[in-house]
Amino acid sequence: MSVELRNLKGTRDFIKGEQRIRNEIIRKLQQIFENYGYQPIETPIICKYDILASKYAGGDEILKEVYKFKDQGQRDIGLRYDLTVPFARVVGMNPNIKMPFKRYEIGKVFRNGPVKTGRSREFIQCDVDMVGVKSMLAETELMIMASDIYKTLGLDVYISFNNRKLLSGIIKTIGVREELEGSVILSLDKLEKIGKDGVRNELIEKGLMDEDIEKLFSLLTMNESDLLEKLRSNPLNELIEQGIKELDELLYYVESLGIKDICRFTPCLARGLEIYTGTVFEIFLSDGSISSSLSGGGRYDKIIGAFLNNGNEYPAVGITFGLDVIYSALEAKGIEIDSSPVQVYIIPLGTEIESLGLLTRLRRQGISADIEMDKRKLRKSLEYAGKQEIPFVIVIGEDEIKNGKVRIKNMKESTDEEIDIDKIEFFFK
Amino acid sequence: MSVELRNLKGTRDFIKGEQRIRNEIIRKLQQIFENYGYQPIETPIICKYDILASKYAGGDEILKEVYKFKDQGQRDIGLRYDLTVPFARVVGMNPNIKMPFKRYEIGKVFRNGPVKTGRSREFIQCDVDMVGVKSMLAETELMIMASDIYKTLGLDVYISFNNRKLLSGIIKTIGVREELEGSVILSLDKLEKIGKDGVRNELIEKGLMDEDIEKLFSLLTMNESDLLEKLRSNPLNELIEQGIKELDELLYYVESLGIKDICRFTPCLARGLEIYTGTVFEIFLSDGSISSSLSGGGRYDKIIGAFLNNGNEYPAVGITFGLDVIYSALEAKGIEIDSSPVQVYIIPLGTEIESLGLLTRLRRQGISADIEMDKRKLRKSLEYAGKQEIPFVIVIGEDEIKNGKVRIKNMKESTDEEIDIDKIEFFFK
Repeated sequence: MSVELRNLKGTRDFIKGEQRIRNEIIRKLQQIFENYGYQPIETPIICKYDILASKYAGGDEILKEVYKFKDQGQRDIGLRYDLTVPFARVVGMNPNIKMPFKRYEIGKVFRNGPVKTGRSREFIQCDVDMVGVKSMLAETELMIMASDIYKTLGLDVYISFNNRKLLSGIIKTIGVREELEGSVILSLDKLEKIGKDGVRNELIEKGLMDEDIEKLFSLLTMNESDLLEKLRSNPLNELIEQGIKELDELLYYVESLGIKDICRFTPCLARGLEIYTGTVFEIFLSDGSISSSLSGGGRYDKIIGAFLNNGNEYPAVGITFGLDVIYSALEAKGIEIDSSPVQVYIIPLGTEIESLGLLTRLRRQGISADIEMDKRKLRKSLEYAGKQEIPFVIVIGEDEIKNGKVRIKNMKESTDEEIDIDKIEFFFK
Repeated sequence: MSVELRNLKGTRDFIKGEQRIRNEIIRKLQQIFENYGYQPIETPIICKYDILASKYAGGDEILKEVYKFKDQGQRDIGLRYDLTVPFARVVGMNPNIKMPFKRYEIGKVFRNGPVKTGRSREFIQCDVDMVGVKSMLAETELMIMASDIYKTLGLDVYISFNNRKLLSGIIKTIGVREELEGSVILSLDKLEKIGKDGVRNELIEKGLMDEDIEKLFSLLTMNESDLLEKLRSNPLNELIEQGIKELDELLYYVESLGIKDICRFTPCLARGLEIYTGTVFEIFLSDGSISSSLSGGGRYDKIIGAFLNNGNEYPAVGITFGLDVIYSALEAKGIEIDSSPVQVYIIPLGTEIESLGLLTRLRRQGISADIEMDKRKLRKSLEYAGKQEIPFVIVIGEDEIKNGKVRIKNMKESTDEEIDIDKIEFFFK
């Protein structure tokens, strides 16, 4: 054929066991999200472009990465680039919604950007957000929920956390111009990744003086509890005072609720994005085998209100789970994957009808079962079952039907066992 | 704000109970698809436009409805309009895949077309397909699987079925020009919907002679078993002979496997699309309360081979489940929907920490639970729980903690019951 069969750069197919595991991860997420009182919603992928482009949505940077086009009616359309803008829109469009409104959404988002390792142009986001609660209990709940989720998935993680007011306040102590603050935060956020020297070079390039940079480092790289102690007794400015107050509330809940030992105060942590107003946190594998975070989130009290601009306050917290990175973490751990979702393969030898009857009975009992349909030779059929790594095979000829007994072959151990046809389901339960 | 908050025409949000039920339907579909040996795959939504536009993909009609645009690299991109083209592409890109290859995909597809009732521009398709089996057992399996699914969902359905070779053969008996055949089939397909007169008018417009139309009607509207009997003894042409042979094989399996009583031979049924080559079927509610089909499918032995054009044969069958119409059918039946996914709401009165501990314990036991976080007044909190239709509420003050006992309020029946705090989980199991 003349058309080249391939996927677009930055997109791919998920097939075989990989997709089964992704579905399994999603099912576990959904279950725990719902146990924590979050309700599923589904919003459209294609959106009015002006909503995506609205000043308080993602900002100019993200707009460069929005897939934009027109429909038949010449309306400007964009593919959503996150699930937060749709969340804010839903809150705005449903003024009678009860607060707190707790929702989760698992869906595709799109970025028309450069394809780097681990960055896709189309990927699934799993976002959990709550709007309407000022108490730090809200972010604590997200952190406990995440800890439950990673425990259920069998992954050892720790939670890095910080408070954006605290970080902003610390930057203010060196008198950085306000328009530069965001940019300085983005550099400091890289401290763990590119080290002190890397950050220093960035900050010099951004026009900071050597002595100011050293002053920042002297605070941000000191022992964490010493830093807190120091700022508690002398907060330096109002932002730091407020940040410490929030952090202490969070710490109180985190300690009381038994997740303190997996939480680490990380004074440089900023979570890149500029939307956060208070708590920020990121979740990493304890063994450090994957450097990027598995989850991240925090408090963003201003964004929804600014986006809706209706005079109301919308304090909000959220967390996102990275399906692809969670999958990679499970894969690296060598998670047990059944190569075949099919437990038993039936090969009829002139007994199609009886075999199909048995097959249907097994399937209705919740046993995943399959059958040779095209009357291939026995050798071919066995070969197929072997290559598919189906664990059990039953060959059913006329004798088996007459005697009411079959032999169930264990393909891995090359053994077999005779069972009454009437009782086969019990073998698989 | 200046931006109007709304969704694009032909798209919508799914929130509250509706989305929970949609997820529940999807979970049931996935479970049964997998019991029947179909593996999940996920393919990208954004696609190379030339693959979507390939001659043997959807044809010119569907291309008018493809959302088309360019990425930053000026590549032509389209949003997928179905899941069959991606399926054929996956088969082509994985030449070592074992046949039969049985997969399902549940995902969004997009149509840039006119918005009519029940037609969306963005919707979820649930497709199950098998490639590599010539035997009519393949389509029988899909029909049995569908019957299991609708039974599990609590919907009474029947399956209309036909064979496209038979229908084409019958049309051939009146000597219709070949390029007109597809169009005549599309008209005949509407017989149940618009009646004999409506179809007659369409066929006259298409240039058919009155006497030819009557000849067609005389065959297609006679008693179904009489028609089969008549054509079995005198097949009129080779296509009819082949169609009858296939239909008889299907009937044999359908009868032997106990779904005959929900199957109806419908000689005009064509399934609109021109891709089908043999069996076609559609599934309807038995009570007729919704006129459109819930599922449809059939055999398409030529499409994948023509699309891949690599000299191999790819006999294939498929079925699609309409999530939106299934939801409507369940809603019309008045399906029981828990208004709240949350079973129990905890209101702490100065006992945040102890209440959160209890909350977390319940959630970890799989009990969906929530808590009042913002220290609202008791009356406000109870009102909130009532409006959310949360069935049980526990108010926990200091006395309750001291005594180790709480009262669980049944909100619907306005009763309450005293329970040891240590044993609360047993109340909800």
